[in-house]
Amino acid sequence: MINVGIIGVGRIGRVHGESISKFVPNARVKAVADPFLNDNSIAWAKSMGIEETYTDYKKILADPEIQAVLICASTDMHSPLSIEAIQAGKHVFCEKPIDHDVNKIKEVLDVVAKSRLKYQVGFNRRFDHNFKAVKEAVAAGKIGKQQIIKITSRDPEPPSIDYVKVSGGIFLDMTIHDFDMVRYLSGSEVTEVYAVGSVTVDPAIGEAGDVDTAVITLKLANGATAVIDNCRQSVYGYDQRAEVFGTEGCVAISNDSDSNAVISNKDGVTAEKPMFFFLERYMMAYANEVKSFVDAIENDTETIVNANDGLQPVLIGLAAKKSVEEGRPVTIKEIADSYGL
Amino acid sequence: MINVGIIGVGRIGRVHGESISKFVPNARVKAVADPFLNDNSIAWAKSMGIEETYTDYKKILADPEIQAVLICASTDMHSPLSIEAIQAGKHVFCEKPIDHDVNKIKEVLDVVAKSRLKYQVGFNRRFDHNFKAVKEAVAAGKIGKQQIIKITSRDPEPPSIDYVKVSGGIFLDMTIHDFDMVRYLSGSEVTEVYAVGSVTVDPAIGEAGDVDTAVITLKLANGATAVIDNCRQSVYGYDQRAEVFGTEGCVAISNDSDSNAVISNKDGVTAEKPMFFFLERYMMAYANEVKSFVDAIENDTETIVNANDGLQPVLIGLAAKKSVEEGRPVTIKEIADSYGL
Amino acid sequence: MINVGIIGVGRIGRVHGESISKFVPNARVKAVADPFLNDNSIAWAKSMGIEETYTDYKKILADPEIQAVLICASTDMHSPLSIEAIQAGKHVFCEKPIDHDVNKIKEVLDVVAKSRLKYQVGFNRRFDHNFKAVKEAVAAGKIGKQQIIKITSRDPEPPSIDYVKVSGGIFLDMTIHDFDMVRYLSGSEVTEVYAVGSVTVDPAIGEAGDVDTAVITLKLANGATAVIDNCRQSVYGYDQRAEVFGTEGCVAISNDSDSNAVISNKDGVTAEKPMFFFLERYMMAYANEVKSFVDAIENDTETIVNANDGLQPVLIGLAAKKSVEEGRPVTIKEIADSYGL
Amino acid sequence: MINVGIIGVGRIGRVHGESISKFVPNARVKAVADPFLNDNSIAWAKSMGIEETYTDYKKILADPEIQAVLICASTDMHSPLSIEAIQAGKHVFCEKPIDHDVNKIKEVLDVVAKSRLKYQVGFNRRFDHNFKAVKEAVAAGKIGKQQIIKITSRDPEPPSIDYVKVSGGIFLDMTIHDFDMVRYLSGSEVTEVYAVGSVTVDPAIGEAGDVDTAVITLKLANGATAVIDNCRQSVYGYDQRAEVFGTEGCVAISNDSDSNAVISNKDGVTAEKPMFFFLERYMMAYANEVKSFVDAIENDTETIVNANDGLQPVLIGLAAKKSVEEGRPVTIKEIADSYGL
Repeated sequence: MINVGIIGVGRIGRVHGESISKFVPNARVKAVADPFLNDNSIAWAKSMGIEETYTDYKKILADPEIQAVLICASTDMHSPLSIEAIQAGKHVFCEKPIDHDVNKIKEVLDVVAKSRLKYQVGFNRRFDHNFKAVKEAVAAGKIGKQQIIKITSRDPEPPSIDYVKVSGGIFLDMTIHDFDMVRYLSGSEVTEVYAVGSVTVDPAIGEAGDVDTAVITLKLANGATAVIDNCRQSVYGYDQRAEVFGTEGCVAISNDSDSNAVISNKDGVTAEKPMFFFLERYMMAYANEVKSFVDAIENDTETIVNANDGLQPVLIGLAAKKSVEEGRPVTIKEIADSYGL
Repeated sequence: MINVGIIGVGRIGRVHGESISKFVPNARVKAVADPFLNDNSIAWAKSMGIEETYTDYKKILADPEIQAVLICASTDMHSPLSIEAIQAGKHVFCEKPIDHDVNKIKEVLDVVAKSRLKYQVGFNRRFDHNFKAVKEAVAAGKIGKQQIIKITSRDPEPPSIDYVKVSGGIFLDMTIHDFDMVRYLSGSEVTEVYAVGSVTVDPAIGEAGDVDTAVITLKLANGATAVIDNCRQSVYGYDQRAEVFGTEGCVAISNDSDSNAVISNKDGVTAEKPMFFFLERYMMAYANEVKSFVDAIENDTETIVNANDGLQPVLIGLAAKKSVEEGRPVTIKEIADSYGL
Repeated sequence: MINVGIIGVGRIGRVHGESISKFVPNARVKAVADPFLNDNSIAWAKSMGIEETYTDYKKILADPEIQAVLICASTDMHSPLSIEAIQAGKHVFCEKPIDHDVNKIKEVLDVVAKSRLKYQVGFNRRFDHNFKAVKEAVAAGKIGKQQIIKITSRDPEPPSIDYVKVSGGIFLDMTIHDFDMVRYLSGSEVTEVYAVGSVTVDPAIGEAGDVDTAVITLKLANGATAVIDNCRQSVYGYDQRAEVFGTEGCVAISNDSDSNAVISNKDGVTAEKPMFFFLERYMMAYANEVKSFVDAIENDTETIVNANDGLQPVLIGLAAKKSVEEGRPVTIKEIADSYGL
Repeated sequence: MINVGIIGVGRIGRVHGESISKFVPNARVKAVADPFLNDNSIAWAKSMGIEETYTDYKKILADPEIQAVLICASTDMHSPLSIEAIQAGKHVFCEKPIDHDVNKIKEVLDVVAKSRLKYQVGFNRRFDHNFKAVKEAVAAGKIGKQQIIKITSRDPEPPSIDYVKVSGGIFLDMTIHDFDMVRYLSGSEVTEVYAVGSVTVDPAIGEAGDVDTAVITLKLANGATAVIDNCRQSVYGYDQRAEVFGTEGCVAISNDSDSNAVISNKDGVTAEKPMFFFLERYMMAYANEVKSFVDAIENDTETIVNANDGLQPVLIGLAAKKSVEEGRPVTIKEIADSYGL
């Protein structure tokens, strides 16, 4: 039985807390910490049977019974908390991204490398039943040698403009999941990025210096080409599709809905929209990723999403951003070199 | 090159005439006959390049250059015209049903049996791409030993009450295609029928002594059970589905639409309705059946739908009718015996 | 917080125990009882945090802190335990069927009727996302007036012959779920049944006096006709489909799979098989039904599946059995009258 | 009735000849010409009822009864034949592309512009039922303002290396259809192209100076972004999909198969592969495009694919080629300027 502490009990912290209580029999949340702890979050913790609620996360790091922490605080705290937790001897599950600043990610990687502790980044889609089925088909050689990888990722609604301003931009905030998915499905590294970005959803997003619609082409080390299309708003719901095409075939996944009921009437043959957003669509993926993290600790195996898996998509995201700014393809090497990687 | 005469140039006669000109290169329509020949039908014949237009079908039967006739007259004329045409030495393609009266069908069978001429009944669905794919899967052993056969057949709109009155009832008029399909897909004979009929579409159909909705269960000689569901009105269009389930698997077909375009929006994910009705849905099947008939003449092979295939569904239809009237399962033997078959 | 006791901790008892711990926050399992309690079941109970494990269910009934019991014992114990539990003042959730003997079910109904306690029968499919979507569409009037209801229900593999012998026959053991579903989806009562049964899976099932394949036609009080097709073995997995057709449209559900991944290659375009069997397919339905039961207790509302809902499908099942035996349609009234109902 | 002459009776010439005889009632092929006329092509012409067969196309141009010609000769002859035919006063249907050389296309445009004759280019997909359904949905405003357009176009097998060498390269030979489709579906012009090409099918294609796999990103004047993915070989058949995503929804089309039969067995749930290649998939589109051309002549309306529609995709193709060669996005203006357009 692994004792876990959760730092940050906003939306995603609570998702993880509930997932552990329901689906991770070999772990329990012993304590949560949040500087903005209030009646609501204390009541939630109580209802989950969590013993301790702190405003100061250091109490979690100081508890010798706690072996692992989940970092669910705001993005700017991810890297310092990661380092402090590892130095306190805790295994770390850190929400994505580790940071928007590559230098800070490098520091985390260095600290992790020197420790014997597990570090996992919250790229939850790797633990989704559909994406896993694609990965397994590719890994089993069912589609032969990869040629084209396609990912469609469209959110049902844009975040607030306040969030957009601190998000790091669409590529580091939203596409980062798709960059991870390209790496995961292909098992290969991205070498070059060309991105086209536009503002077609809300001019305010453009005024905030970001784009809300993007098509990104990626060259891969294995010779395949990947293409991602994103939009911050899709009126029919969260559109999450992927396809890997190769010399022996093609594997593709489509959207999940609340039910597969289809109504035929004088207007047509109508199925349900895709599930609304990530909390609905990836609920079990959130549970599976934490379970996988706990299993990695128990069995002393590598985590499925390690610290380098946290770094690479950020490099790709920075290349995509530069590509839009400069209207040219940008190599990952160019970005990596600039950080001495 | 086979010279063909068409007797009756109403809707279905013209469908066959056009099919032959477009899709049957080894046949040409030399003459048509219709007692109600008018400017419109003469203009149609001319546009098709048909040489002769008669009001008297006997002129077709008397033409030594014509080897085959298509009987597309009203149902009550099917059996006498069949007999007269065969006796005139013509191969015969006869629209379904041969007759509603088993004794008249017997006469046709007798005449056909004594001749060496080809006789084909217009069960067009046997020549449809989807139903053929089911037949081929079953015949190839892909589903193993048959256990359950299901057919859904729903019309987009009911016929006129005038038509209902002379139609012979839903089982002889509409379900007869499904009875044929059960025989065709299974390659087996029906032994017993239980039918439930109701009036859920239009009370006037009930007043005309018919039902408009039915579920028919059929026991087959090969041990399988078939079930057909019918309705005279389906607001979403012509619903034509089938499924054969067996010890090794299940093969199923769904509806065809004008395009496979799907629109996702805030209301759902909507595909097109099925094609409207039989002329749209089975246009190529009409062409294929006539082509198959001409090929059978040219190659001196058995037709795909012979005279007995015209008889059996009528026996099943009469059993279904009796089953509804008497509220009990009725064997085909009971019906056959009553006609000395 | 409702304290629950579970009587019988075989497969389904444990499913409910785990569901409560994961998904029913307002209930906890305080005790379990099973005459065959062993190390394995005690360890399971401990892992679930269940305080008490008894061999004698009477200890559960005697515990004043326990408000509700789940009866998951063998079928022959369902009715006596139901009566005893109600008489002990407990709300009862009873696995289906209440009994195979209508007289025993009547006794339960009488006892329930005199109490103010909740009684729910384990027809779990009512709580499945797909079947609920059909029910909601029908109830919302989206398909107009019902005309035809179709249910396909095929198991991936037959039970053991030993089980078949005590199962009460396919209609009371397997089809009973489909009878319940017809009543649930239609919101109407069945008036007459005609069933065809055959042995196409395993001759030993026939030798045990049962059939393994069946097609059942049901007349409904609302004028619609329902048809169910069953088989004890489907090589492609658990086939669970339904369709309600009406004057304004048709609503249909298909199978669920572990993922929606589709592989296209030289052999075709292949999707995954349906989920294997009921534990996989209906896991969330089991959770939802217990949650609904607990909510009914807390809010003092009617349960979604009451004692009469437990009785009616048994009457339909007995009618189906008689129909096969006597080769004729059998009314529910005939069965009900024979029991003085 | 329009009299038509066909110049070139190779594969596509015969497709058009047969389409006209079957599906274009208001046209007839009076003559065909082919320098390589042989017994086989003469027999074909005879079977089609075509009066005249020439080796010299000038005889067609000289026939005052022939109002329109279909140019189905080799690509290098498209532009000179177009010019000569127009100058001879004939309406022209020209197979795609008009030429690979922009200057030669310009000459054709000039000659066409000075005439009052109809000119149509053979972009057959505009006349396909699925692509038309997308166009109609977009044009009807059903998806709102366009944001992302996606086209997948993969051939079942690569052409011969000999063909590759004279094909003008993948962008002018294969993608040109997709460039046309982007213009057609969007109703907008392409402004900039970025293309990634690779050799993943056959190294000999690379040695011939071409690529066999490509992902092309296109900026559109209307603010949308389009992305096309191509491969010269898809083991599961001809993959022809498209999708237009906008502010109010998304319309998508998938592949057509010979039948919609689905077989479920222990290996999965398997549908048929897409239709093999363009002759199967677009047979009706070939008929529709010629019918549309004849209708434009008869009704004196603009053709659906005019001479400029023949020019623009060539400019886009040249931009794509340059983009791969120089590893940068290329504007259409850059290409157009270089030709003084």
